[in-house]
Amino acid sequence: MNLKKTCERIKSLEIQGATNVAVEAVKALASEIISSKAKNVDNLFKEIYSAKEKLFATRPTEPMMRNFLNFVIFNLENGKYGEIKAIKDAAKTISDEVFKMKEDAKNQIKKIGAKIINDHKIIYTHCHSSTVTGIIKEAAKNKKIEVYNTETRPLFQGRITAKELAKANIPVTHFIDSAAKFALKKADIMLIGADAITPTGVYNKIGSNLFAEIAAKYDVPVYICAVSWKFDPETLFGHEEIIEIRDSKEVWDKPPKGVKIMNNAFEKVDLDLITGIISEFGVYPPNSFCGEIKKSYPWMFVRE
Amino acid sequence: MNLKKTCERIKSLEIQGATNVAVEAVKALASEIISSKAKNVDNLFKEIYSAKEKLFATRPTEPMMRNFLNFVIFNLENGKYGEIKAIKDAAKTISDEVFKMKEDAKNQIKKIGAKIINDHKIIYTHCHSSTVTGIIKEAAKNKKIEVYNTETRPLFQGRITAKELAKANIPVTHFIDSAAKFALKKADIMLIGADAITPTGVYNKIGSNLFAEIAAKYDVPVYICAVSWKFDPETLFGHEEIIEIRDSKEVWDKPPKGVKIMNNAFEKVDLDLITGIISEFGVYPPNSFCGEIKKSYPWMFVRE
Amino acid sequence: MNLKKTCERIKSLEIQGATNVAVEAVKALASEIISSKAKNVDNLFKEIYSAKEKLFATRPTEPMMRNFLNFVIFNLENGKYGEIKAIKDAAKTISDEVFKMKEDAKNQIKKIGAKIINDHKIIYTHCHSSTVTGIIKEAAKNKKIEVYNTETRPLFQGRITAKELAKANIPVTHFIDSAAKFALKKADIMLIGADAITPTGVYNKIGSNLFAEIAAKYDVPVYICAVSWKFDPETLFGHEEIIEIRDSKEVWDKPPKGVKIMNNAFEKVDLDLITGIISEFGVYPPNSFCGEIKKSYPWMFVRE
Amino acid sequence: MNLKKTCERIKSLEIQGATNVAVEAVKALASEIISSKAKNVDNLFKEIYSAKEKLFATRPTEPMMRNFLNFVIFNLENGKYGEIKAIKDAAKTISDEVFKMKEDAKNQIKKIGAKIINDHKIIYTHCHSSTVTGIIKEAAKNKKIEVYNTETRPLFQGRITAKELAKANIPVTHFIDSAAKFALKKADIMLIGADAITPTGVYNKIGSNLFAEIAAKYDVPVYICAVSWKFDPETLFGHEEIIEIRDSKEVWDKPPKGVKIMNNAFEKVDLDLITGIISEFGVYPPNSFCGEIKKSYPWMFVRE
Amino acid sequence: MNLKKTCERIKSLEIQGATNVAVEAVKALASEIISSKAKNVDNLFKEIYSAKEKLFATRPTEPMMRNFLNFVIFNLENGKYGEIKAIKDAAKTISDEVFKMKEDAKNQIKKIGAKIINDHKIIYTHCHSSTVTGIIKEAAKNKKIEVYNTETRPLFQGRITAKELAKANIPVTHFIDSAAKFALKKADIMLIGADAITPTGVYNKIGSNLFAEIAAKYDVPVYICAVSWKFDPETLFGHEEIIEIRDSKEVWDKPPKGVKIMNNAFEKVDLDLITGIISEFGVYPPNSFCGEIKKSYPWMFVRE
Amino acid sequence: MNLKKTCERIKSLEIQGATNVAVEAVKALASEIISSKAKNVDNLFKEIYSAKEKLFATRPTEPMMRNFLNFVIFNLENGKYGEIKAIKDAAKTISDEVFKMKEDAKNQIKKIGAKIINDHKIIYTHCHSSTVTGIIKEAAKNKKIEVYNTETRPLFQGRITAKELAKANIPVTHFIDSAAKFALKKADIMLIGADAITPTGVYNKIGSNLFAEIAAKYDVPVYICAVSWKFDPETLFGHEEIIEIRDSKEVWDKPPKGVKIMNNAFEKVDLDLITGIISEFGVYPPNSFCGEIKKSYPWMFVRE
Repeated sequence: MNLKKTCERIKSLEIQGATNVAVEAVKALASEIISSKAKNVDNLFKEIYSAKEKLFATRPTEPMMRNFLNFVIFNLENGKYGEIKAIKDAAKTISDEVFKMKEDAKNQIKKIGAKIINDHKIIYTHCHSSTVTGIIKEAAKNKKIEVYNTETRPLFQGRITAKELAKANIPVTHFIDSAAKFALKKADIMLIGADAITPTGVYNKIGSNLFAEIAAKYDVPVYICAVSWKFDPETLFGHEEIIEIRDSKEVWDKPPKGVKIMNNAFEKVDLDLITGIISEFGVYPPNSFCGEIKKSYPWMFVRE
Repeated sequence: MNLKKTCERIKSLEIQGATNVAVEAVKALASEIISSKAKNVDNLFKEIYSAKEKLFATRPTEPMMRNFLNFVIFNLENGKYGEIKAIKDAAKTISDEVFKMKEDAKNQIKKIGAKIINDHKIIYTHCHSSTVTGIIKEAAKNKKIEVYNTETRPLFQGRITAKELAKANIPVTHFIDSAAKFALKKADIMLIGADAITPTGVYNKIGSNLFAEIAAKYDVPVYICAVSWKFDPETLFGHEEIIEIRDSKEVWDKPPKGVKIMNNAFEKVDLDLITGIISEFGVYPPNSFCGEIKKSYPWMFVRE
Repeated sequence: MNLKKTCERIKSLEIQGATNVAVEAVKALASEIISSKAKNVDNLFKEIYSAKEKLFATRPTEPMMRNFLNFVIFNLENGKYGEIKAIKDAAKTISDEVFKMKEDAKNQIKKIGAKIINDHKIIYTHCHSSTVTGIIKEAAKNKKIEVYNTETRPLFQGRITAKELAKANIPVTHFIDSAAKFALKKADIMLIGADAITPTGVYNKIGSNLFAEIAAKYDVPVYICAVSWKFDPETLFGHEEIIEIRDSKEVWDKPPKGVKIMNNAFEKVDLDLITGIISEFGVYPPNSFCGEIKKSYPWMFVRE
Repeated sequence: MNLKKTCERIKSLEIQGATNVAVEAVKALASEIISSKAKNVDNLFKEIYSAKEKLFATRPTEPMMRNFLNFVIFNLENGKYGEIKAIKDAAKTISDEVFKMKEDAKNQIKKIGAKIINDHKIIYTHCHSSTVTGIIKEAAKNKKIEVYNTETRPLFQGRITAKELAKANIPVTHFIDSAAKFALKKADIMLIGADAITPTGVYNKIGSNLFAEIAAKYDVPVYICAVSWKFDPETLFGHEEIIEIRDSKEVWDKPPKGVKIMNNAFEKVDLDLITGIISEFGVYPPNSFCGEIKKSYPWMFVRE
Repeated sequence: MNLKKTCERIKSLEIQGATNVAVEAVKALASEIISSKAKNVDNLFKEIYSAKEKLFATRPTEPMMRNFLNFVIFNLENGKYGEIKAIKDAAKTISDEVFKMKEDAKNQIKKIGAKIINDHKIIYTHCHSSTVTGIIKEAAKNKKIEVYNTETRPLFQGRITAKELAKANIPVTHFIDSAAKFALKKADIMLIGADAITPTGVYNKIGSNLFAEIAAKYDVPVYICAVSWKFDPETLFGHEEIIEIRDSKEVWDKPPKGVKIMNNAFEKVDLDLITGIISEFGVYPPNSFCGEIKKSYPWMFVRE
Repeated sequence: MNLKKTCERIKSLEIQGATNVAVEAVKALASEIISSKAKNVDNLFKEIYSAKEKLFATRPTEPMMRNFLNFVIFNLENGKYGEIKAIKDAAKTISDEVFKMKEDAKNQIKKIGAKIINDHKIIYTHCHSSTVTGIIKEAAKNKKIEVYNTETRPLFQGRITAKELAKANIPVTHFIDSAAKFALKKADIMLIGADAITPTGVYNKIGSNLFAEIAAKYDVPVYICAVSWKFDPETLFGHEEIIEIRDSKEVWDKPPKGVKIMNNAFEKVDLDLITGIISEFGVYPPNSFCGEIKKSYPWMFVRE
């Protein structure tokens, strides 16, 4: 897939989901490198940096894509490949490596998360996260569990979760969002995904912070389930994630004149509401998560 | 309208809304009395009691209807009319009186509530209550106010509120239910209606208690706006309101197999989250509301 | 039973329990009146007041005894019996009346409380209150309920509760006091008795306020179950109940030297933790309870 | 003192303090009545109503003055004095009566409040209230107590309190306002006065609500000490007290250009932070206070 | 002591306490190694692993024993001793090293903890922890301190604490568990031990979380006092500590039929209730404790 | 400046402010080294250690001075300069280095902090911190912001903040301390400085913890803005910062006899009230701040 086209497809939401966007961006970068006509290494790297900027510009907040691209480029820079040919070969190898790491991470999380869920537990979740459903389905293999979930207006991603789990023969009870207290009063654990992890909070679907507050009140532990690549290192240096205000039509197709719709799609879940972050590194309290990444992924924290 | 037909129309939800149900029930009772063929007063009262029972049986929880009917019958019993003719005449007069009292109460509440809303205030409301919209429209006559409201899944009564107020040229900002924290963070006052008022809490649309909790956290005062006839005297003696579990289709028309829908339509708002109840009696703290009614409406507390 | 002996038996704890103490005190007063050798009405009343003072002095805090005695004397004073003979007769009649009122109240509470407990509910209780066990046994007649209770150190009154209910075939799960969170997390309602009811709080067994706080956190409603005669009118005028510090031996028979035992037997449950008080008057929010009593028992509020 | 002059002195703050203002207003009204040249009763009452309006207009929020004047006029209206002479005589008598009631109330409160303060207690207070210092001095007569208080910026009324109590040989520890947590952590009880009592909260000096919140957190009971005449009946009907924004010079005499000073002098203490209101009626939970006044002072609730 | 016997003694609770169990397990392992008849290094290690498994199996949750054994084996594996003789010698040396490290840690903690306790402080503790009593006795050497403690049903370990401290001339005030609010209201600091430390919470005696919640409310700092070897590295990977449900006889020897006893012996103290963990590393906030261990004890995190 | 004089000037408060004190102490140490007459390296180091002790003794709590001095000495010790001449040269170089690091840190923080403040934000601050005002002025360069601040009794440092920001054309609204709820209700972010950072909390001006509690309630994020040199490594080993009780005259110049003034100048802000610490390392959650310093400044944690 060529770079320009990929950029367009990401911008137009044709490519969706943090993981898909990240994967396609890496593919586009790799293809750009491989098909480059640069005559020397310096020029090739100029092209690489330019491609990165174009891909970064497609979305305001996509830490996973940024981390994937930075990983590839960091390794190309530090691999001391010397020649254009070697770099082109490495582009392919390193891309594959990042995809494999992502897969390994997902598998790791599935096992760790499934272990946390004990027998006969009621799991509450909001919105749809394939990491969360992956954990639940893994746990259901040898445990008797049940899921309570909320529909997640305006786009009803809660229905996707309900469908997927019901299909896997896991009993699901489905609530409207404003009935979350009824769902959480009986739940034993709350699992949600993450759009971006920062040192001072986790960004996730609107409702996540409100429901985590109720969970805290009822002493229901709240776990964020996400690959560590969702961490946004820029936020360490003062960058604040921008909360996307999406199209009002998602909420109300044709509202009467004089009615303004506020469709803020995400909210920040406060660190002190989160019991732990389940990532490929294991289960860490949210405050020490960033420290773990720094040790394992130093390339993430390189600043020009 | 004859009794049997009215009962059917109430049961089938053809007649809806606490006030409409109450009015139609009184009309049916009055018409039943006026057209009675009873030969003596005792028999006439037997018919009256039987009609009351039939009307009561149409809905599990309708304090306003019960209070209206009890008011009419209490006055017929204590009016010492003696003759059938006199009773038939009184049935009409007393019915009219109850309708007038209701209208007077609504007007009184509108004025009191409008006074509480100071200039340049942001009012938050959930669901649709004609008492609340009445207050807001009254206040908007000479104050510059703004309304934040939530859509109120599953039936989107929040849209009815938004439409009605926008039509009255009051600026409305509309949120999904799970974004209520964003709405309440900026609000100056929260006004909601009531389905039933009890000595230990107010029953209202699902979400009301959750949002009142947020309001309390943010020090936003919460007012219940309702005619005092919404008080259910039976709850003084141990009766607990039944929370209606409505048809799951309202939430999700065709859910996949294995997904159970919980559509509990109401919840109880705890007394200590309520700043005051605005009724035709004035603004009372919720704990002393019942005492006020007892002084003014002794007939409500007659027990056989 | 003669007065002096009754006073001794109350002081020595031979007579125990608010109700028993109150009943025996009234009996002693009545017997004192009937056997009086007073020659005129003035002298008889002097004897009555003297007997009252002696009985009052047996215990620092026994609102029920005080209310019973005040009721009898108030009625003797206001009955305008004129002659000694008539007063002696009345002493008997009024004593019987107060006992009957107490029985009626207990029955009334049993019915009201049982109504509040819906089907399949888990009821949490602490210590032992015959009013609470009465309600639970009444409810168990036609409902499937379960009880969680705490042992109530140092005297293990929770075991009395457990035994009594298990005997009535109601399943009981028994916890140590410090495990109350486990018990309340699953409970649907908390019912406790009262040693004294005041306008600003209810005095009950140590632990009651702590556990009511947990209940509030978990949104478990807390009901006080008590006859209204537990109200202490003196507290309206600045009197504060004295929290009895009981013998340290109850806690630790022979503690080592240098270890001081604090055995404060009661604590004050804050009004805002209490959902309602279930008394013979019905279910009232705690703040308006005193107002109800004032209307029904004006004699309780007479001050010399 | 003539009416015009009194109005001016009240407006210019020459007369200060809720009680002083109320007393002087009644004196001015009485003197206006006595010196009236009206030829008939109707005209005299016209003059009375006109005087009342002038006095009311001197201050936006002075419930005590309004209550005093309403009491006098209500009694003149209902006394059926018939002749001008009789009314003039009554004006004097009723004025004296209201002053006496006020004195009696203060004494009553002093005794009740002193009873609530047990031995060896640390009392926390904010600002200066003669009702509070009266209680403390009464209690100190036979109890060993200590006072912690906050200085109460911007006008340092806390110093007046400290001086007055130290002079009465009561040990005082004095804190800056922002150190209130240190003061309340060790306090056993918090006593404050009231500028206005309403059905949904008590208005008092800025800081009162903030410090009552800390008290609630630390389980320190909060009592409002005030004569019941501080109740503002208009607030029952939707009127909200206006929080006076006082001159910025009180806070900072010559602030630099570009700095705006917010000097809001009062705040509303939420009902659920208040344990009880100590008035001449006794100790009532704040929610039922209004009910007590309605029973005792029906004239306060007359609405034209 | 031979391996089989030690396993039996641990299982039968003849050996009790995390430290004792750990020490005896290491001794048994060392003795097993020293007396081994293995002919080659591979076989010797097979025996070592088999012994480890047997020791691990004696108790479901004993992180300290597991850490001790893993430390010994890790060092044997990485010591590259080559010959059986050298390994046998090393087994002794490394065992002694682990015992010395434990002693050093205890001493270190005693000094650090004693420093945190300032003069004239009231220390609250629950249950019995020799680490906590060690700190208190160290602090009492040159500071005037006092201890409040709770009896800790069902086994009254609080009495062991009270006895030990009273014997050291430290004044102790002893409360029943449900009176913990009275104890904590006056306390300046809360110190408790730990059964297991995990990245998301600390497991300790039932009541610990409840009392830590009260401490947080009253702004009393809560410190966990424990050697870092109580950290359970398995919990990083999804393992959740199993809360031991002990014999119901501990609570009630012969409960009546129909009464079920819940004797859950531990509970998880939430991280956000803990001010700091005092270990041999110093005073760390609980969230960063795990990071410190990882740096110092990498062998703890080896996963096969 | 010679050592003795500098010590005196620090003691007498002639030199004030954590940064000034640290800078002057380093200058005095460097000058002491350069002018030393020591004949060998050992003696020179003895003089260095002696100078350090004298400087340390000038103030009980000045982590920044201690860190500066320790940095210089650590580098002298580890630089292996061998000869006196080389050490004297190094003293100058290393002193300059520490001053440059401090300047770089301040600039770094200014940029990071300014990034966190989004457009049109209301920033709340208490007391005066040049780090905070630096951030605000940086942010105001290209953002439209507004500041709410509290006056900060007893020394009114809030006025210094207000003046400085108003001069920079940033609109300031100024409140008395007890009106902090009004200020925070509308604020979007709270920024304060730090006197000392410890692993379990941040010490700052009295009021900081109280206002951070309100901020937490209103979901206003709280950031500590400080160079990492404010971290006090001694607190890791049980040392607790001493809260300075300053001269009572600052609060009330001539208080009446019998009034004790408590002028505790600082309080500890609990970690869980702090969203993040903005230092030259970036934005870290408070729990992981110490870990970051350990990695970057190992010399800070050297213990003899």
